[in-house]
Amino acid sequence: MKLNYSYTGFNKINSNNIKTGFANRGMGLENDINISCEYYKINDIAYIYKKPTPIKLVDVDYKNGVIKKAYFMTPSTTDYNGIYKGKYIDFEAKETTSKTSFSLSNIHEHQIKHLIDVKNKGAISFLIVRFTVLDKTYLLDTNDLEYFIKNYERKSIPLNFFEKYGTIIKIKYNPRIDYIEAIDKTYFGGINNEEKTKC
Amino acid sequence: MKLNYSYTGFNKINSNNIKTGFANRGMGLENDINISCEYYKINDIAYIYKKPTPIKLVDVDYKNGVIKKAYFMTPSTTDYNGIYKGKYIDFEAKETTSKTSFSLSNIHEHQIKHLIDVKNKGAISFLIVRFTVLDKTYLLDTNDLEYFIKNYERKSIPLNFFEKYGTIIKIKYNPRIDYIEAIDKTYFGGINNEEKTKC
Repeated sequence: MKLNYSYTGFNKINSNNIKTGFANRGMGLENDINISCEYYKINDIAYIYKKPTPIKLVDVDYKNGVIKKAYFMTPSTTDYNGIYKGKYIDFEAKETTSKTSFSLSNIHEHQIKHLIDVKNKGAISFLIVRFTVLDKTYLLDTNDLEYFIKNYERKSIPLNFFEKYGTIIKIKYNPRIDYIEAIDKTYFGGINNEEKTKC
Repeated sequence: MKLNYSYTGFNKINSNNIKTGFANRGMGLENDINISCEYYKINDIAYIYKKPTPIKLVDVDYKNGVIKKAYFMTPSTTDYNGIYKGKYIDFEAKETTSKTSFSLSNIHEHQIKHLIDVKNKGAISFLIVRFTVLDKTYLLDTNDLEYFIKNYERKSIPLNFFEKYGTIIKIKYNPRIDYIEAIDKTYFGGINNEEKTKC
């Protein structure tokens, strides 16, 4: 469980990036996405935020504003949502150390249901999965995820399914993980992938 | 500061409502909206969620999953967002005990900026304001909020501005506070308010 991302931390992290290039790449997918979200926001490209982890409060000192006892709760939806090009965007981001497949046990069933529900209401919804050992990150559209679940008995999505149906997300200098470029390719007929347009 | 709304609590609250009618009306705007969001979700009408309050963790016993010290943080965005009729929905909900006006000091500046930013990207964004003493609740579109801020020097929005430009939100049996009906009227040409269509 990580600390919630704060604005004040961004400039610091960002200036570090400039100095050290990709040195912080190992800090994890979530951090990469948060930094990229901030980049998109500052540049008025997209407004996409990580939702805070829900907390169950047990003991709070309201006078001094201090939480003295609390528990982490299971999030009821996905990690990220927001708006891009007038579209509601919703996604969950996961890492795996496997070199061959992504186990669906990494995602709660109600999160998959949420991705499908919002997709059916007109959202752009997807998974971002990083194979950390391979250093490959994919966007997988919820339609493809749903197709896999309905048509395959196995409980893990093999790497070649991502290679075939997913969109690779490039690691860059800034934004660190350009998932908006991958959204453009997948849903808006990006220049390198016109045939795959889904919107 | 309230406990985060949890799914498991819903059925209980809802069955209480059925038994006691409007007895819980005094539980507050946030509770009313949360129950209504759940109603919309269960009935596949809209998927709109309250974001958890962000927490700054100071001391966590990760072994036992217990937060031992933490602070509430200022939310960086608005309270609610989600999807309805393919549109990204984003709003902030506030109560006032004033009978005459709603002070803008109730909303953080960056929250107003957020409402305007997402509106400019194609979102349906608005304020919900309840005048608790008058028992009146209004939806005020971000364009109207922006207009007020740009054209009036005063720092509180008078009630008659809401009466003139806002859309009244009805209190019902179920959903408790039918803000989706108000969205329909304001943005989709609802039957009682065709001339006010904004989408």
